[in-house]
Amino acid sequence: MKALEKIRAAVRRKKADALLVTQPENRRYLSGYKATDLSITESSGALLIPTRGTPLLLTDSRYQLQAEQEAAGFKMVRVQQNILKDLVRIVRRLKVRKLAFESHYLLYTTAKKLMDLGRKHGIEMIPVSSMIERYRAIKSAHEIQKIHKSVILNEQVFQEAYAGLRPGQTEKEVALEIEAAMLRRGAEAPAFPTIVAAGPNAALPHAIPTNRVIKIGETVIIDMGLKLDGYCSDMTRTVVLGKPDNRTLKVIRLVRRAQRAALKTIKAGIQTWDADRAARDIISRAGYGKNFGHGLGHGVGLAVHEAPSLNRKRSNKLQSGMVVTVEPGIYVPGWGGVRLENMVVVNDYGCTILNRDTTFLDI
Amino acid sequence: MKALEKIRAAVRRKKADALLVTQPENRRYLSGYKATDLSITESSGALLIPTRGTPLLLTDSRYQLQAEQEAAGFKMVRVQQNILKDLVRIVRRLKVRKLAFESHYLLYTTAKKLMDLGRKHGIEMIPVSSMIERYRAIKSAHEIQKIHKSVILNEQVFQEAYAGLRPGQTEKEVALEIEAAMLRRGAEAPAFPTIVAAGPNAALPHAIPTNRVIKIGETVIIDMGLKLDGYCSDMTRTVVLGKPDNRTLKVIRLVRRAQRAALKTIKAGIQTWDADRAARDIISRAGYGKNFGHGLGHGVGLAVHEAPSLNRKRSNKLQSGMVVTVEPGIYVPGWGGVRLENMVVVNDYGCTILNRDTTFLDI
Repeated sequence: MKALEKIRAAVRRKKADALLVTQPENRRYLSGYKATDLSITESSGALLIPTRGTPLLLTDSRYQLQAEQEAAGFKMVRVQQNILKDLVRIVRRLKVRKLAFESHYLLYTTAKKLMDLGRKHGIEMIPVSSMIERYRAIKSAHEIQKIHKSVILNEQVFQEAYAGLRPGQTEKEVALEIEAAMLRRGAEAPAFPTIVAAGPNAALPHAIPTNRVIKIGETVIIDMGLKLDGYCSDMTRTVVLGKPDNRTLKVIRLVRRAQRAALKTIKAGIQTWDADRAARDIISRAGYGKNFGHGLGHGVGLAVHEAPSLNRKRSNKLQSGMVVTVEPGIYVPGWGGVRLENMVVVNDYGCTILNRDTTFLDI
Repeated sequence: MKALEKIRAAVRRKKADALLVTQPENRRYLSGYKATDLSITESSGALLIPTRGTPLLLTDSRYQLQAEQEAAGFKMVRVQQNILKDLVRIVRRLKVRKLAFESHYLLYTTAKKLMDLGRKHGIEMIPVSSMIERYRAIKSAHEIQKIHKSVILNEQVFQEAYAGLRPGQTEKEVALEIEAAMLRRGAEAPAFPTIVAAGPNAALPHAIPTNRVIKIGETVIIDMGLKLDGYCSDMTRTVVLGKPDNRTLKVIRLVRRAQRAALKTIKAGIQTWDADRAARDIISRAGYGKNFGHGLGHGVGLAVHEAPSLNRKRSNKLQSGMVVTVEPGIYVPGWGGVRLENMVVVNDYGCTILNRDTTFLDI
């Protein structure tokens, strides 16, 4: 309930009487309600958080039972046909005059309808953006434990997949094996579509697994993560079947050095772009500056991509309790790519690496 | 390109010079670009369709190669840091004065930023809703072929899973097996999270598979679908391990009769709620009216849920070339549920059932 009280205070600071929460991870963060949305147009519910009194969870009959079981401390309201009209009715009953809504997670059409309805009934609608995301960026000790468990399970799945890796398997087969193993071992779901990219395909940072057969000697990027008890993990390893040639060895060692340099800079109080620069400088000095086309990392929590973002374009201050990835990469069109990704917890004296897997040191 | 020309005409009728397409299935429908979005906040691109001249596909470096390979006839534009600013720059270069955007698939914050930028640069932004969805509801012969192939593959996966079904397996295990078999047999992905719900869990229309062990004699609802070459299938079977008791037999036969009655009414020109009523009347007359808590069906195509919707609350005219599900169900809290779902193509003289599987007649 601590998070909830912080959010209530933030709502009060916006001069609103209540907040409507539609973003799925924010919903889970505040209420414990685990349902995911099939898509933004097929929502499984919304929270209504008044600045005082019992918070509500609005959902329909399909999710009623689950909502009651999971959202302790929330009152379940079963909505009928038209959620917006029902919402306005409830809001009026609660004597809410100013309702804040998550403008970064409500469709334009829906927001317009809501504002029109509000105007009709004397309720002011206040768009707010990323109010809850700001709090989510700083993890509690309890959350860090959950994230750590997710990281450890993800590594176990990786190690099983790596031990079974054989030339002749396709990228798709390996990715499918990994995702099946995640579920078998108790993950809720993959945190994102698993990437297995071999040879030239590894030159695409967001490659989709293909029917390409994995060959001896080429780099294979495996980027995988899972959700466990709501919390995500995200890890990348680059492996080679057989003996890597000299160029491959050189690039792998370079990325490893870049990662180490970034890890050394990370601590509460530094600017995120300074961490990015530490890795980028090493890669650039070796002549691969153009081949590191993405940022150094991102926050991980209930969502696999969340605040803060670590890149060279915008900067934020790192804070104690943030959990971020550190993932430099080098991508050479026609040849392949190498990326290494670990997750760390930022603290006042540096950072704690959550990963234990050292496969990438074998090469 | 026929669909594209129809959309250009619709854009002209809205007095706009171009349309921005952000909805993923609409993007694929018009361009062939297959990338999906991780979520609405992590888009893999947008189309810009001027009323004349070459249509554009805006995406970033991660998707560049894929976009070039898949979106034949579209010019690839690689966007940099700020997609909205890049968009406005491109729109000005094309001398577009009025830009329509998909207000039902753009976040409020984003739409506001776009409108503010437009105001600054003398571009009028016109919200339009479901413009492309209207055309997508009527399938071409080519699309119906693709949907049929998806249905057939889905049935093969079901039959494999059904043949392997044993008491003692958990719902989760069966669902996982089904999804793995889909991918193994060449599906792009499951069309939605597979539902396997046994005994009392089958009383929830949208149950999530649990660790509950499947027992002899109880109803097991299996609701599954896959994506093949972009097109979705969606089928539900209710099976029983061992011998169903009399009550189960009665409910299964009732749902089957309700489905048959709906199928008989479906043809181009009828109102969608008349099809719903045909099934509902039979279930109500048998005293289970309250236990059929959802609509009769929905359209299926590039999206697993699309226009038209078949329910008792709102009505539309069925048109030749629509592809819809027919899925009556009965749900009894504490006991279980039965649902049967087939997909049909609406035509002038009735409808064509795309399913061949008759497992549900075995009982």
